[in-house]
Amino acid sequence: MEGKEEDVRLGANKFNERQPIGTAAQSQDDVKDYTEPPPAPFFEPGELTSWSFYRAGIAEFVATFLFLYITVLTVMGVVKEKTKCTTVGIQGIAWAFGGMIFALVYCTAGISGGHINPAVTFGLFLARKLSSTRAIYYMVMQCLGAICGAGVVKGFMGKTRYGALGGGANSVAHGYTKGDGLGAEIVGTFVLVYTVFSATDAKRSARDSHVPILAPLPIGFAVFLVHLATIPITGTGINPARSLGAAIIFNKDKGWDDHHSITWL
Amino acid sequence: MEGKEEDVRLGANKFNERQPIGTAAQSQDDVKDYTEPPPAPFFEPGELTSWSFYRAGIAEFVATFLFLYITVLTVMGVVKEKTKCTTVGIQGIAWAFGGMIFALVYCTAGISGGHINPAVTFGLFLARKLSSTRAIYYMVMQCLGAICGAGVVKGFMGKTRYGALGGGANSVAHGYTKGDGLGAEIVGTFVLVYTVFSATDAKRSARDSHVPILAPLPIGFAVFLVHLATIPITGTGINPARSLGAAIIFNKDKGWDDHHSITWL
Amino acid sequence: MEGKEEDVRLGANKFNERQPIGTAAQSQDDVKDYTEPPPAPFFEPGELTSWSFYRAGIAEFVATFLFLYITVLTVMGVVKEKTKCTTVGIQGIAWAFGGMIFALVYCTAGISGGHINPAVTFGLFLARKLSSTRAIYYMVMQCLGAICGAGVVKGFMGKTRYGALGGGANSVAHGYTKGDGLGAEIVGTFVLVYTVFSATDAKRSARDSHVPILAPLPIGFAVFLVHLATIPITGTGINPARSLGAAIIFNKDKGWDDHHSITWL
Amino acid sequence: MEGKEEDVRLGANKFNERQPIGTAAQSQDDVKDYTEPPPAPFFEPGELTSWSFYRAGIAEFVATFLFLYITVLTVMGVVKEKTKCTTVGIQGIAWAFGGMIFALVYCTAGISGGHINPAVTFGLFLARKLSSTRAIYYMVMQCLGAICGAGVVKGFMGKTRYGALGGGANSVAHGYTKGDGLGAEIVGTFVLVYTVFSATDAKRSARDSHVPILAPLPIGFAVFLVHLATIPITGTGINPARSLGAAIIFNKDKGWDDHHSITWL
Repeated sequence: MEGKEEDVRLGANKFNERQPIGTAAQSQDDVKDYTEPPPAPFFEPGELTSWSFYRAGIAEFVATFLFLYITVLTVMGVVKEKTKCTTVGIQGIAWAFGGMIFALVYCTAGISGGHINPAVTFGLFLARKLSSTRAIYYMVMQCLGAICGAGVVKGFMGKTRYGALGGGANSVAHGYTKGDGLGAEIVGTFVLVYTVFSATDAKRSARDSHVPILAPLPIGFAVFLVHLATIPITGTGINPARSLGAAIIFNKDKGWDDHHSITWL
Repeated sequence: MEGKEEDVRLGANKFNERQPIGTAAQSQDDVKDYTEPPPAPFFEPGELTSWSFYRAGIAEFVATFLFLYITVLTVMGVVKEKTKCTTVGIQGIAWAFGGMIFALVYCTAGISGGHINPAVTFGLFLARKLSSTRAIYYMVMQCLGAICGAGVVKGFMGKTRYGALGGGANSVAHGYTKGDGLGAEIVGTFVLVYTVFSATDAKRSARDSHVPILAPLPIGFAVFLVHLATIPITGTGINPARSLGAAIIFNKDKGWDDHHSITWL
Repeated sequence: MEGKEEDVRLGANKFNERQPIGTAAQSQDDVKDYTEPPPAPFFEPGELTSWSFYRAGIAEFVATFLFLYITVLTVMGVVKEKTKCTTVGIQGIAWAFGGMIFALVYCTAGISGGHINPAVTFGLFLARKLSSTRAIYYMVMQCLGAICGAGVVKGFMGKTRYGALGGGANSVAHGYTKGDGLGAEIVGTFVLVYTVFSATDAKRSARDSHVPILAPLPIGFAVFLVHLATIPITGTGINPARSLGAAIIFNKDKGWDDHHSITWL
Repeated sequence: MEGKEEDVRLGANKFNERQPIGTAAQSQDDVKDYTEPPPAPFFEPGELTSWSFYRAGIAEFVATFLFLYITVLTVMGVVKEKTKCTTVGIQGIAWAFGGMIFALVYCTAGISGGHINPAVTFGLFLARKLSSTRAIYYMVMQCLGAICGAGVVKGFMGKTRYGALGGGANSVAHGYTKGDGLGAEIVGTFVLVYTVFSATDAKRSARDSHVPILAPLPIGFAVFLVHLATIPITGTGINPARSLGAAIIFNKDKGWDDHHSITWL
């Protein structure tokens, strides 16, 4: 944000401000070829009478519901087999998380912004991309959706089997401290939020033709990659709604304890 | 659909109607920047004299034929080995289903709309996106294509081996009730149809640069993801034509019984 | 091709010629909104004095060289281990073939058209998309590139080990007849050529925003999917240059015999 | 580069210079429809006073840090298990490398050009796409980022376990000579640099609609594919910063020795 102002101060516009990949034919003048949207107000009472506000919350609810349903069901399918070779494997679990985020961001970006994750909502709120009203409303809807999604999986699996299989809840693996788990979650969440901010950066969208069009793909890939790396440590809880939903439905002491350390609740 | 009308009624246009991801540079005026296509008539006799109508049906037939051929052959290749490590694995089966839908929607979207699935055709018919004549014609062609595709695989594999391997037909796995299977199929089909409707929404296509261009990709991913999650339950029958084709060619009581409960035939 | 003419004859333009996926906002007038390129002449002597003609052949050589190098090396890495769990697996082999075609079509589409496969070159020649001179020149360069690529892998692996591991050559698996293998290759090649023709169709490119932009992706996916399905039958020989190169460098009777039946040489 | 000049000399413009894939509707006139950016100066002192210069270096540092963190952690997760079926597998490692490059090129292309690899920086420097000042600065930041990324993983894993697991450092596998390893790295690096140059070619960007928009995707795929093929030989060291960072943090004789031969330091 400040960078853009300093560009002008330091005379950066005399120099090629970026090394283009695949966009070498674009002109790079010293006029701003993009408009930054104004920061969202902290509190916007008028939103509350708008249908699009409620529609956005419903979209977040449905998206988080489907996200938890597909991912927890995939985790169950892998966990219930003794030999992982007859399942989609740990890599399949990572694809389920990343792929769902890709598909759901694609579907809901035009309605609610496609957050599907309280950490993303909170990050965008700090950057003044949405009001506090909307941020809290989104987070509540995401958590409700997550609880319902995990609940439906519990219904399909049966209470006993669901409990025995760990319920898809996150926990720190044997051999790692809670500090390791917390650190891994912090870096993992940073990877996701970093990608989301790149996709919403007006400057980059205006200059790089791939930024606005591919947007949901790298966000989904970021989720996939963080899962590839951190499933062996904590099962990956970079989505607090997903961790909360699975923990509430699983409802065991171990799940709750670790949930506290991982998602800072 | 109604949402758009209420936007105007509730004064939603005063507020930022959406949280943009990667499209922050777009203007959001209160004029409609898109046109909704008129609903398709219920019955359109004139279509029947148009070459493009028959061409569309042929495209659906070829697409469903290739879909069944590739996917059932992949399933056979995995099922016939005892240790799944020497095969593409369950994850490979999910890729076969999702990848084929991606490639076939890409190829046939401009000719027939790229349905390849009676559930999608029926959903789009309910939304008045195509006439009843076209919907029935598509479904018949899809089922014929599916039967031929499964038949060619049976020819390559030989009758005995094909039967012994289960013929790629769907059935509810041990440990789940028929109700579980039905429920899993309902949610799975919803994920697919939800993605298809997002891709065909004129409003989102006009506003989000990624919606019209990436369209076949999230549709293919939705199919991939539903298979990742529900193969352990039913083998995933979200495509009634695929289930029907495999069941007819496999032609065993178990296949038919479960087919009834899963695809509501 | 004829379909477009019949559209006019049968009055198809009165009706919605297509069911749009993600492109509902486009107008569909009865004027042709695209131009069909004129068919390529059968023989074009002037091409032979053009640098771009020779550059295109070099691009095909380099692409086929890299294609064989990466794919045969991946196959070797999987074959040489007893337990496939410590390798990228059969699915990894399919990704190597499909992924390389995606990357190479992306890189060479603007230079040579990105064929990388004599079957694609021959199909486009039959459709009058390139002259006979260019078609023969491309095929020769593709075969030379394939031989060099397989040769470099043989150099890295050592003659003895390369021979013992089968050299990445195609052969019909135990339990299938040569007719099964031939049939599987015919349908597999059809899937690939069908996707390539969809991507080069001027009409679809003009109307569907996803067709020109995603083009290399479904072509790569088609190759990936055909490999998922037919590796258990023949190892997949839908690329005659790849089969020829591996067979020449492998140079064993079995490889040659099956090569005859699979790629019709 | 020279090819374009010879086009004019040899009269190539009379002929169809390219076989279009998916772009058949574009006009191909004999006027240049693109502008080649001027070569970067060898030394540009003014850059050093520009904020965008320092921002670009920070972006390279962060990207290489996250790249090493995710990939080395994924490698650790696979290596520490005896049976690879309970991990994401070798294929998962290849996805981690390729996917991170895709996501990071997407995020940083507009800030630093998205190199993330000293070999890419050096290749673009040879092609006069960036000045020597910037090239050296990028390489230093990439190496620092890599060392920090590998260090954080060592912190999470604990010193003993990290050392026992090989620290994600590259080494030539048993059964291959150092010459094989060097050769495999040279061809692998060529595949990556070839793809990057295709994505930055102004001519192709102007003519092929897929080139500028998909750019980060084939670059990521190239990295994925080279890893699929050469992990069994050297673990793949096509990124000198990644090899250096892992070797410094791992700090064992074997790692250093092989590092010398593989990355020519």
